[in-house]
This record gives sequence, C-alpha cells and structure tokens, in this order.
Amino acid sequence: MSILVVGSIGLDTVKTPVEEHTDLVGGSASYAALSASFFTPVNLVGIVGSDFPESEFQFWKSRDIDTSGVQRVSGKTFRWSGEYAWDLNTRETRSIALNVFEHFRPALPPKYRESPFVLLANIAPKLQSHVLDQMERPRFVVADTMDLWIETTRADLEALLRRVDLLILNDSEAREITKETSLIRAGRKIRGFGPRYVAIKKGEHGALLFGQKEFFSCGAYPLEDIHDPTGAGDTFAGGLAGYVAAHAGEKVSFELLRKAMIYGSVLASFCVEAFSLDRLRKLTEKEIADRYQMFKLMSQFEALT
Amino acid sequence: MSILVVGSIGLDTVKTPVEEHTDLVGGSASYAALSASFFTPVNLVGIVGSDFPESEFQFWKSRDIDTSGVQRVSGKTFRWSGEYAWDLNTRETRSIALNVFEHFRPALPPKYRESPFVLLANIAPKLQSHVLDQMERPRFVVADTMDLWIETTRADLEALLRRVDLLILNDSEAREITKETSLIRAGRKIRGFGPRYVAIKKGEHGALLFGQKEFFSCGAYPLEDIHDPTGAGDTFAGGLAGYVAAHAGEKVSFELLRKAMIYGSVLASFCVEAFSLDRLRKLTEKEIADRYQMFKLMSQFEALT
Repeated sequence: MSILVVGSIGLDTVKTPVEEHTDLVGGSASYAALSASFFTPVNLVGIVGSDFPESEFQFWKSRDIDTSGVQRVSGKTFRWSGEYAWDLNTRETRSIALNVFEHFRPALPPKYRESPFVLLANIAPKLQSHVLDQMERPRFVVADTMDLWIETTRADLEALLRRVDLLILNDSEAREITKETSLIRAGRKIRGFGPRYVAIKKGEHGALLFGQKEFFSCGAYPLEDIHDPTGAGDTFAGGLAGYVAAHAGEKVSFELLRKAMIYGSVLASFCVEAFSLDRLRKLTEKEIADRYQMFKLMSQFEALT
Repeated sequence: MSILVVGSIGLDTVKTPVEEHTDLVGGSASYAALSASFFTPVNLVGIVGSDFPESEFQFWKSRDIDTSGVQRVSGKTFRWSGEYAWDLNTRETRSIALNVFEHFRPALPPKYRESPFVLLANIAPKLQSHVLDQMERPRFVVADTMDLWIETTRADLEALLRRVDLLILNDSEAREITKETSLIRAGRKIRGFGPRYVAIKKGEHGALLFGQKEFFSCGAYPLEDIHDPTGAGDTFAGGLAGYVAAHAGEKVSFELLRKAMIYGSVLASFCVEAFSLDRLRKLTEKEIADRYQMFKLMSQFEALT
C-alpha cells in the first residue's frame, strides 16, 4: 500500500576529507522517498524553488513517486552545506539557507489524505503535526527527528510523539531527550512519551528496536569504505517505513518491524557508498535481496540456512 | 576438553559513582577462568601473595578449576584500583601495585602442557608467549590484550600474534593497533598480523568476529543497570574460549565461534550486574541457557522459533 512521505527537499554541498560536491539533490524527504520506493508507491510532500532540477521530477516519476504534493514556487530551494571530520563520524554544518522552505506549509492533495502509511521524515515537529492534521486516520505513522527539535521545539515534539506509532532517532538524540546514559533505559523511556515503538540508530553499530516487551538489535552492514554518510538516517527510515507499508497485514507486528529494520539498514548501507542519491539511483532489487541475505549470514548463530 | 587459562590474579579496589569496594578478587585470569568453568574444566596459571584469601582456592576447587599452576609466594598480591566516570563508560586507574606479579614467570605443571585449548588472558605479551613456549602443540590458542601492550611492548605483541588463532581486543584497541578508523578495515587488517580470527568487543554495542571471508556481528544483552563493568572483557573471553574448548570437534569452525561469541556475551552480561565475581559466583546453567535464548529472540529476524 502507498506511503506518504513528507520532509525537506534541498540542494546540498558536502565536503568530506577526500571530496567536495555542490548542488547535490538532498533533504530528508529526497532520501526517504527514494528508499521507500523500492518497496511501495510513494506520495511525496515537499517544496522546491525554481532552481530545482526538473530532471529530478522525471526521475521520481520513473520510481512511482507521486509528486502532486511537491510545491514548486519561485525563489531558491532549501540549501544545506556540511563538512565531515576525518573519520566521517562527526560533521559540522557550514551553512543553511531555508529559502522557499521558510514559509512551507505542507498542503496535502485530496488523494493523499487516505494514505494508510505515513513517514514524517525529519522536519520541524509542527510541520509533521500539520501533515497528520490533514490525514484521515492513517494506520501507521513513522516519524524521524533530530537534536535541533529536541533542543528548540521540545513542546511541539512532545505533542507530535503522542500521535506517532514508531519514532526513529539516533543514539545521542535518544540520550538527549531522556537524559539517560543507557540506551536501553532511553529506548524504554521514550515509549512513555507516546510511540508504541522506538528505533534507535547507532551508525556503524547498527540499530535497536523497542516494543512494549519486545526488543530487537541488529548490526550495521560491514562496509570498508564510506564515501558520504549524508542521508543514511533518512534512507534507513524510508526503507523501514516503505517495507512496512508494502508488507503489513491486519496489523503491524513486531516481527514485521524486525525485518523492516534490516531492510532499512540495507538501504542505508548502499546510501553511504556514494555522494547524494547516486548509489540509490542505480540500486537493483537483486542487490537489496543479496545484502539482506548477507545480514542473515552475519547475524545468525543457529540453524543457518 | 580442558582449557589452560593464564593471566593476572589480583585484589581490586573499584569505585563507581554509586559505590566503592576494596579487596575484591579480580584480575584477568580470575574472571576468565570462572567464566570458562561454566563450560569445561580449567587449568589455571597465575601468582598470588600470602594475603590472598584461601577461600578462593576452595571456591576454584568447587568449580573444577585446577590450581596446581597457581603459585602462592610470600609478599603482597597484585593490586589495582580504578574509578569509573558517571556513565561507567570510561575509567581511570588510580593505582597499580605489581607486588608478587613483578617477578612472575609462569611455569606450567607437566600435566598442563598437553591442554588442547589455551586462553592467554590479558597480561604482558612476553608472559603469554612464555606460556606457549612450554606447551605441546595446543589445538586452539585464544589471546586477549590491551592498549598498554600495544603502546609499550608492540614487538612482543606482534611476535605473539603470529602464534595465536583468535585475538580478542576492544574497539579502541583495534583502531590503535591498525591506525584504521573503520572497525571493519581494522578487523581484517589485524588478521594480517597472524590470527586466523579476530574478535572486537564494543561494550554496549556488542561484538564483531572476523574470519578469512566470514563475518559475524552480535549485539550486547540489553541491561538497564550496570553495577561494575570491571572484568566484563575477561569474562567474555573466558566464556568464548570455554565454550569452544567444550564443543570443538575435529576443527574449530566459524559456526562454532558464532555461538561462542554469544556465550561470551551472555557471561559478560552477568558479570557487570554486580561487583567483582559476585554475580558469576552464584550463576546457574539455567540462567545462562535462558539468556542465550533471549539473545536469539533479540537478534533473529526470520524463522523465529
């Protein structure tokens, strides 16, 4: 079934210790939507300026990503520029220009309002809530967030969390929002804020998933060379939510979420192999299936098949 | 089959943000031997002073740990004192007194020399090599090490590594010895120093195992409360090596090592639940089996049974 994906769409400048590239298509929704599209049709919501490449709309169309919810307005597209440290584990934002994003109010086309699945990729919690306000009882809502919103719009974020089924955030954010040092305590505590499920991303260390009593832990795919970590978290969220939308039966079970975590990890592992969306653009279903098998091989210790 | 375990035996003073305890039985061999004893008989090699409690020898006997290789000499036992930071993730050594350990030369009783399995728990690489010199073609040699030896006795360590089947070290040590930031590159590179297998411990993030082409990744058991991390790595090594000694057939396969990594993780997860060896002293086989099942539940994403 289709999934609605809302978030930022931007043009990035990314500098690693090895390379620098400008005007890359980026933003949380760009990564998440493309990642989800490997599993299910996507209804995309966002905003771009007149400088945004028309070719990207053609590409979205080819991927069964509906763009009737993407506003194109006069002015410049949202721009972000960042630089990674030598080990690619930390990055510094060099500049942000909101541009057309400054006055963005997501407006859902009528046909989007019944999307049964929703991924609120990383944008301000108020905008994420505004999208939910326009929807008719979605079955499963996934939200991603970041430290900025925990620090600056905590009340908005807490209001959102009461309406979310699965929250995705990274390890430092989980610690920040709960003031707990143990990720296990943090994950469980965040469930108290509203979400039935919480996924904590740990980068090279994999990810954790918390349910009411259930717990799941998975490693990251063993990559020797990472070229650009930008968008890995968004890609993880998109793959996870897209897999859920494609395979959920009557209800979204913890067993389904386990597999979705692996598919999210698989997609994220491809994302970082090249700058921007370059690796995902040419990704095949066969490559996804092969890497899923690798995840089985690397994590199972009984009854290997 | 029996396993020879050599390492330090000491009396520790441990301070956490919550508690402080003195004169705790500790040292790499104490943790490793007790952990291994849950799987197989142990031949222990070490040295203690006249102040070391006789009761510990009685306890070892009750656990099928042979102590004919433990020298008791006049003088004081090796002492270590450490203090943990607020999050228990980092610690500072407050004092070390080598005492009788200063002139320790491990001498194996004749009956130990044919032990088919060996765990060289963390001590100076020269002492570890000296133990191997006295042995008759052991089938599988596991060695643990630490940053101190990488920094101060690198040549000794490299000489040792050429004689080791499985090296265990933690993530920061793996990065230090290889000058690689990627743990995946580090793990593979360390195999080039000699060991056929390399296990990298990542604390709360679990552990990785590298073979020639094989790779295995496991999470850590989800503990909300950790009381004392001291000895967790030694306990991991002991559980892993003990399980291998108990279950190896003709050869030590990667499949066996996968399970051994889980048992090492299970034992380590109990170790940190109390100070010193307190939790391990009263651990039961049923508790180990139950936690192993929990590891299956938390890490499998297909064909859950």
